[in-house]
Amino acid sequence: MKVAIAQLNYTVGDFEGNKSKIIDSICKARDKGADLVVFAEYAISGTPCFDLLHNAPFLEACEDTLHEIAKHCDNISVLVGLPIQNDNRIISAAALIQNKWVVKYIGKQRISSRFDNMGCISMSAGSEHIEIKDNVLEVAIGEDIKDYRKFGGECDMIISMRSQPFFRGIIEQRHNFHRNMAKELGKNVVMVNHIGGQGDFVYDGSSCAYTNDGKLVGLLNNFAEDFFIVDFDNALELEFPVQNRTYNTYRAIKLGLGDYFRKNGFKKACLGLSGGIDSAVVLAMAAEVLGAENVRVLMMPSRFSSDHSVNDSVEMAENLGVKYNIVPIADAYDAVNSSLKETLGDTKFDVTEENMQARLRMIMLMALSNKHGYIVLNTSNKSEAAVGYGTLYGDESGSIGIIGDLYKIEVYALARFINRERTIIPDNIICKAPSAELRPDQKDSDSLPPYEVLDAILYRFIEEGQEIEEIITAGFDDEIVHRVVELVKNSEYKRRQTPPPLRLSSRPFSSHFIMPLINKFKM
Amino acid sequence: MKVAIAQLNYTVGDFEGNKSKIIDSICKARDKGADLVVFAEYAISGTPCFDLLHNAPFLEACEDTLHEIAKHCDNISVLVGLPIQNDNRIISAAALIQNKWVVKYIGKQRISSRFDNMGCISMSAGSEHIEIKDNVLEVAIGEDIKDYRKFGGECDMIISMRSQPFFRGIIEQRHNFHRNMAKELGKNVVMVNHIGGQGDFVYDGSSCAYTNDGKLVGLLNNFAEDFFIVDFDNALELEFPVQNRTYNTYRAIKLGLGDYFRKNGFKKACLGLSGGIDSAVVLAMAAEVLGAENVRVLMMPSRFSSDHSVNDSVEMAENLGVKYNIVPIADAYDAVNSSLKETLGDTKFDVTEENMQARLRMIMLMALSNKHGYIVLNTSNKSEAAVGYGTLYGDESGSIGIIGDLYKIEVYALARFINRERTIIPDNIICKAPSAELRPDQKDSDSLPPYEVLDAILYRFIEEGQEIEEIITAGFDDEIVHRVVELVKNSEYKRRQTPPPLRLSSRPFSSHFIMPLINKFKM
Repeated sequence: MKVAIAQLNYTVGDFEGNKSKIIDSICKARDKGADLVVFAEYAISGTPCFDLLHNAPFLEACEDTLHEIAKHCDNISVLVGLPIQNDNRIISAAALIQNKWVVKYIGKQRISSRFDNMGCISMSAGSEHIEIKDNVLEVAIGEDIKDYRKFGGECDMIISMRSQPFFRGIIEQRHNFHRNMAKELGKNVVMVNHIGGQGDFVYDGSSCAYTNDGKLVGLLNNFAEDFFIVDFDNALELEFPVQNRTYNTYRAIKLGLGDYFRKNGFKKACLGLSGGIDSAVVLAMAAEVLGAENVRVLMMPSRFSSDHSVNDSVEMAENLGVKYNIVPIADAYDAVNSSLKETLGDTKFDVTEENMQARLRMIMLMALSNKHGYIVLNTSNKSEAAVGYGTLYGDESGSIGIIGDLYKIEVYALARFINRERTIIPDNIICKAPSAELRPDQKDSDSLPPYEVLDAILYRFIEEGQEIEEIITAGFDDEIVHRVVELVKNSEYKRRQTPPPLRLSSRPFSSHFIMPLINKFKM
Repeated sequence: MKVAIAQLNYTVGDFEGNKSKIIDSICKARDKGADLVVFAEYAISGTPCFDLLHNAPFLEACEDTLHEIAKHCDNISVLVGLPIQNDNRIISAAALIQNKWVVKYIGKQRISSRFDNMGCISMSAGSEHIEIKDNVLEVAIGEDIKDYRKFGGECDMIISMRSQPFFRGIIEQRHNFHRNMAKELGKNVVMVNHIGGQGDFVYDGSSCAYTNDGKLVGLLNNFAEDFFIVDFDNALELEFPVQNRTYNTYRAIKLGLGDYFRKNGFKKACLGLSGGIDSAVVLAMAAEVLGAENVRVLMMPSRFSSDHSVNDSVEMAENLGVKYNIVPIADAYDAVNSSLKETLGDTKFDVTEENMQARLRMIMLMALSNKHGYIVLNTSNKSEAAVGYGTLYGDESGSIGIIGDLYKIEVYALARFINRERTIIPDNIICKAPSAELRPDQKDSDSLPPYEVLDAILYRFIEEGQEIEEIITAGFDDEIVHRVVELVKNSEYKRRQTPPPLRLSSRPFSSHFIMPLINKFKM
């Protein structure tokens, strides 16, 4: 039996575009002799849909599109994902099309966790087996595949239709999961996933197929559309390539950032270039993805900025051929301070004035955005967001976070990767000690543990869900661990208002790691 | 049988405080001869806990607290809610304590929608009947009560333990639901709910009891702690009072705002007073709840502000005895503009300069906040948030939104309620045409339909989930409806970054009404 896997980049609500991609792949699959072509979960609608799933015209458009697709399905069986309404529940389902008719819907059974369901309460009467050319197939939608040990009855093949976003390590995990499942059940396995950026979500694709003894016989592109036909009667074993996590992160950002602009119809981006590593990495990615001619940067020195901050930034902008302006903020800073003199009284320089600088920079960037249509890219990283080391409505602003789900040490790794062939980010930016430059001679290490320590603690606490005692037992300083965890707890209010970051980890803030706004628990 | 209902204001993670309230009520109930005392779902932990539910020490603290409470439970049965871990799932459960021992856990069965579960994946082996003094009781946790028609077997009484937040109309709905259930099943019913503010959540209490023929025999306070013993063998029928929605909204805001400050250990608040209705209402509420001496306001006129804006604001601040400063923003505005001259080029006044004013005001308020510890109150309303008529990082800033879940017409109703006995908000503020005053002679009605029309369309679209065609059929202008819905769709990116509003409706933004960040669907 020949199964075609169509791994496509859909757009939420773009029914014409999604339909035409789907029909093209159906024709291609039939022309190449496939018996069945499989598309991802939510292929027709795109995903995540959030509350569009509760919008009746949206659901009708899904169904109408399905029936238009069906007209093109002669001489081939088709499995395609879409949300359907059934008994007042919205279900993620697969439609089976044969001889131009929708002959069956297979609904998702498992209610996903709040992290997966994206607004879709999915519960159906139960999945069913389908038969294609004397092969019995069991179809699992989305997270249902996790329950494969409960799958009932005899079948020859398991079809897994997914919309599983990328995160650090998922590509290897997914491969191992499907290979082990194929071996354990002794069934052929086909998995079809989304690829593409969809707001803060990035889907990596990596669709795959395994024979009933666990041999990899199909592996589609990561981070790109792809099409592949598995001939299970005559399949070659493939090798699963070693994954480079930094390279995968790089490609995830390229895809996510590119699709955010393309699918929203945006062209131009701007950001503030501080001379630090974070904004340098964001600029490098933006110039690569959007083209240097579509990116503008502002250098906005205050009186606490070092000369090298502007010089390094200018060097980088000129290297890339990105248009830049130097907009000193000292005059605006003085004007604000002088207006506030009576209100604030006679006080010393403190975090107030630090934040004021960051917020004035936001005003400059947003003015450029409002006036000339540049989308402001947020340059915060996950380490800062975790401990609240950033200014709300200041550097924590922008339309979307490019590196907001990367710890500082991952940002450094990405910087070195960007410079792998030639120096795009000046060495000086990579080598200098991190500083917010909001007061004289400030260094991040004045307020925070070194990033190697901070990130290690945060990774254990946030990504791995370790407890404080576990982290201390692993060798970290008691007092530092408690301080870091307290900072994480107390900066939730900032994270509720920061730009959504491209999701690159399994625990992005604001969806997968949420603290209450009131929390008396001493963790 | 005598059942005591303890309706208490818990705090998330305050195990000592919650425990001591619970023990006090147990003693009181025993002293007054109750056979059973019932507390709310999540009484021991407080709610919502979000990812604290996945923190093992937090769950251990819940259990430890339960066992300390149990020591005080002689000569009375106790039902108290807490999260427990069972088979790798976190379950919202009730513990039954008898003779100082935890004799049984009853787990929540239903998996709530993403709106209810607050991070808790709740699925258990099934609820059970319990027996107290020859009475058989069926205990339902949280949303499980919605499935009451599926409740099995014989019992004399149904105990519903809830943590149901307030929203417009819920008090009447909840009363009708429980009365009808009691009648339909022919069982006595006891419902116990939380009261209190918990971040952006407000719990209204309104715990109640019904006899098996649907008579109301217990009704506890709204928006305040309360304690009541129902003697089912000897119960008086009570009348369910007519609810005034504006008064309930007023009390919900008082409770939510007060607890936000009290539970977080905050004392002082500040806000910008524009001369418009929104900030006036927020000021009135803040002065009422926190005390005029703990509130500071800034009037921040630009050259587009009318004289009456400052005069009306000063009048109101002086009426209340609230300290104010007038901080003109013209100098800072000129400084920013002059710094940006080269960057922006020679362009006309547009939304850029409008937003700049709003953002400079944010800087002034945040400076006051950072310097002197005043918490900035957000003054945006739901109508603005719905259509994106506000400035991100400008007026859409602050720690928590006080009226962010109220439509503009509800804000007017609240203003009139606030003035019910004496003029707190000057008449002129209530009567003037709404204006952002960000350009000469600007009126909200230049860009938006009149609020009576806008709010009616938004209410149908957002709160009632009506489709565009339905709204048009109801008599609204086709073009206006489409424009409003398009504005709602296109301002999602702003709503992702705005302060959490006190939840006062059944569909607050960012949790109950979410649009994708990329959305090609023409609604």
